[in-house]
Amino acid sequence: MSLTVVGSIAFDSVRTPFGERERMLGGSAVHFSLAASFFTEVRVVGPVGEDFGAEQLGVLEGRGVGTEDIERVEGGETFFWRGRYDYDMNVAHTDDTQLGVFAEFEPKLSASSRGSEMLFLGNIQPDLQRRVRAECDGADFAALDSMNLWIETARESLLAAIGETDCVLLNDAEIRMLTGEPNLAKAARALMAMGPGVVVAKRGEYGAALFIDGDLFAIPGYLLEDVRDPTGAGDSFAGGFLGYLDGHRASGRSPLDPVALRKAMAYGSVLASFNVEDFGTERVASLTMDEVAERLADFRRITHFEVD
Amino acid sequence: MSLTVVGSIAFDSVRTPFGERERMLGGSAVHFSLAASFFTEVRVVGPVGEDFGAEQLGVLEGRGVGTEDIERVEGGETFFWRGRYDYDMNVAHTDDTQLGVFAEFEPKLSASSRGSEMLFLGNIQPDLQRRVRAECDGADFAALDSMNLWIETARESLLAAIGETDCVLLNDAEIRMLTGEPNLAKAARALMAMGPGVVVAKRGEYGAALFIDGDLFAIPGYLLEDVRDPTGAGDSFAGGFLGYLDGHRASGRSPLDPVALRKAMAYGSVLASFNVEDFGTERVASLTMDEVAERLADFRRITHFEVD
Repeated sequence: MSLTVVGSIAFDSVRTPFGERERMLGGSAVHFSLAASFFTEVRVVGPVGEDFGAEQLGVLEGRGVGTEDIERVEGGETFFWRGRYDYDMNVAHTDDTQLGVFAEFEPKLSASSRGSEMLFLGNIQPDLQRRVRAECDGADFAALDSMNLWIETARESLLAAIGETDCVLLNDAEIRMLTGEPNLAKAARALMAMGPGVVVAKRGEYGAALFIDGDLFAIPGYLLEDVRDPTGAGDSFAGGFLGYLDGHRASGRSPLDPVALRKAMAYGSVLASFNVEDFGTERVASLTMDEVAERLADFRRITHFEVD
Repeated sequence: MSLTVVGSIAFDSVRTPFGERERMLGGSAVHFSLAASFFTEVRVVGPVGEDFGAEQLGVLEGRGVGTEDIERVEGGETFFWRGRYDYDMNVAHTDDTQLGVFAEFEPKLSASSRGSEMLFLGNIQPDLQRRVRAECDGADFAALDSMNLWIETARESLLAAIGETDCVLLNDAEIRMLTGEPNLAKAARALMAMGPGVVVAKRGEYGAALFIDGDLFAIPGYLLEDVRDPTGAGDSFAGGFLGYLDGHRASGRSPLDPVALRKAMAYGSVLASFNVEDFGTERVASLTMDEVAERLADFRRITHFEVD
C-alpha cells in the first residue's frame, strides 16, 4: 500500500504565547506526510527552493517518507509563511506569505507516485488538483482538502475537483461556506451529493465529524494541557486519517469500511494532538508508534461510555 | 432520591431562522427541571408574576415536577427575555430583558425542598446561591451554574459559592474567564483547586468535557440536522446530567462514581439535543423515556470506536 500527497512544503515562522521559531520546516504536505508515515508508505510531491536543504529532507526521510518527487527549483525560494497565535489558539493571524516557487508550481509525478493506491490532494489550486487526480490512475481512493480562498476564487473548478474525489476533508466553516447551508450535518450531506462518499468536517480543538452514506461518527478533540503551536494540526489529522485507511488495506479491507473509518478518525485526532504539543514538526518527527498506540488507547478511554 | 433546583422561571420571546414564538415558557430552572424529571423527583424554586398561569404550571406538573416552591408575587411580572439567533445558532442576541419579580427574588424553600439529597444552584446572584446552599442541609451534593455577569460583578461571592459546592457546570469560555487560564484543561484543574471535585465544561454544539480527580472525559455534541431554537440547551444538559446522577443513587451508588458521571454526560447531551429540536419547552414537554433511551443508544453508536 502507498499514499501520494501533493501540497505545500514550507518554511514557517511562528509566534505563540509559548514561544517562537524562525523558518521551521512546515507546509501541509510535510505535516500530512509525517503523520501518515506511521501507517503506510508515503510519497510527497511539491516544490522547494534552493534554500531547502539536507536538514529539512532529513526530517522527512527520517520518517521514511519518499522525497523523490520534491522538486528543487534553481534560483527559487521555498514557500514562506509568518504567523502568530494569541491566547485563542483557534485563530491564526498571518503576518506574511511569500509564495516563492509555489506560485509557478506544476506538479510532476514519477511513475511510483502515480501508481500509489491512495492520493491526497492537499490545499492547492483546484485545477492542479484535478490534473494530479487524472495522472494518478493507480489510485482507487482520492481525498481532497481546500480552503476559503479557492471557494471564493475558483468555485467551479473546486466543485469539479470534489466531483472527482472519494473523500473531502474540510473545516466545518468551509463546508458551510461551500454549500451555503448553516447546519453542518445538512451541509455535509449536500457535499456528498456532489460525489464524495466520505466527508470529514474538521472542527479544530473540538474534534471532527465523519459523514458516510446513511451514517455518521463524531469525536471530540483530545484535550491537552499544553498546546504550543497549532500550525499543521488539520494536515496531521488528515495524514493520520488517510495513512491509517491506506495501511489498513494491507489486510484486504476497503477504505470505506465503517469500523476502519472510525478508527482512522481516532488516529487522525491522535496525530493532530501530538502535532500541536510542540512547534512545527518537532514533536511528530521524534514520535514513536508506541506513543501513538498509547494515546489512542487513552483517547478511547476518555471518550468511552456505556449504555446499560 | 430528589433534586431541588433554584433559578429563573421566565417568558421567552425568541426568533430564529426557523420561526418565532412570543412569550413561551422558559428560564433556566424550567429547562433544567423538565430534563431532570426523566430520572428523579424534582422540586423547582423560583419566583413568577401574576401573568404566570395554570398553562405554564401544567407543563411542569405534566412531567411530575414539584411546583410547591414556585412563589407567585402579587402584582408582579414574570422575568421576560426577548432574543434572536441568526444562522450561527451558537450566538444569542438579546433584544430585551425585564427582570420583573426576579429583581427582588429571595428564595423561600419548603421543608421538602430543603431536604433534597441533591441541589442545583442555577444562574442567580452568587450570595443567593450561598444562602440556598446553607439552607439545604439535606443535600450532600450541590452543583452550580453561573455567567459572565457574576464573574465580572460579584467575583468574590462567586468564588465563595464555588468553594461550597461539589460540582461546577459552566461554558468553556466562562471557565477560562473565571480562572484567567486560556487552556481549558488547565483552567478546569484551577477551578477544582477551589473546591469542587467535579467540573463540567459546556461547549455548546461541540459537546462537553468532564474533569474529576485525576481523570477526564470528553463527548462531542449530538449532531442534529434540525436545530430550531438553542435556548435552554445548557440548562437541559445540566438537568439531564444531575438528574441522572441523583436518580442513579437509588441503586446505592455515589454521584462521584466515574461510570455514572460518564453516562450522566451522555444523558445531558441527549436531553440538550431534544431541547434544541423545537422552540422553548415544546419538544422536551412531550418527550418519552423510550425516545431518550433510543437516542442514548444512537449517541453511543455514533461516538464509539474500537482499539484492536
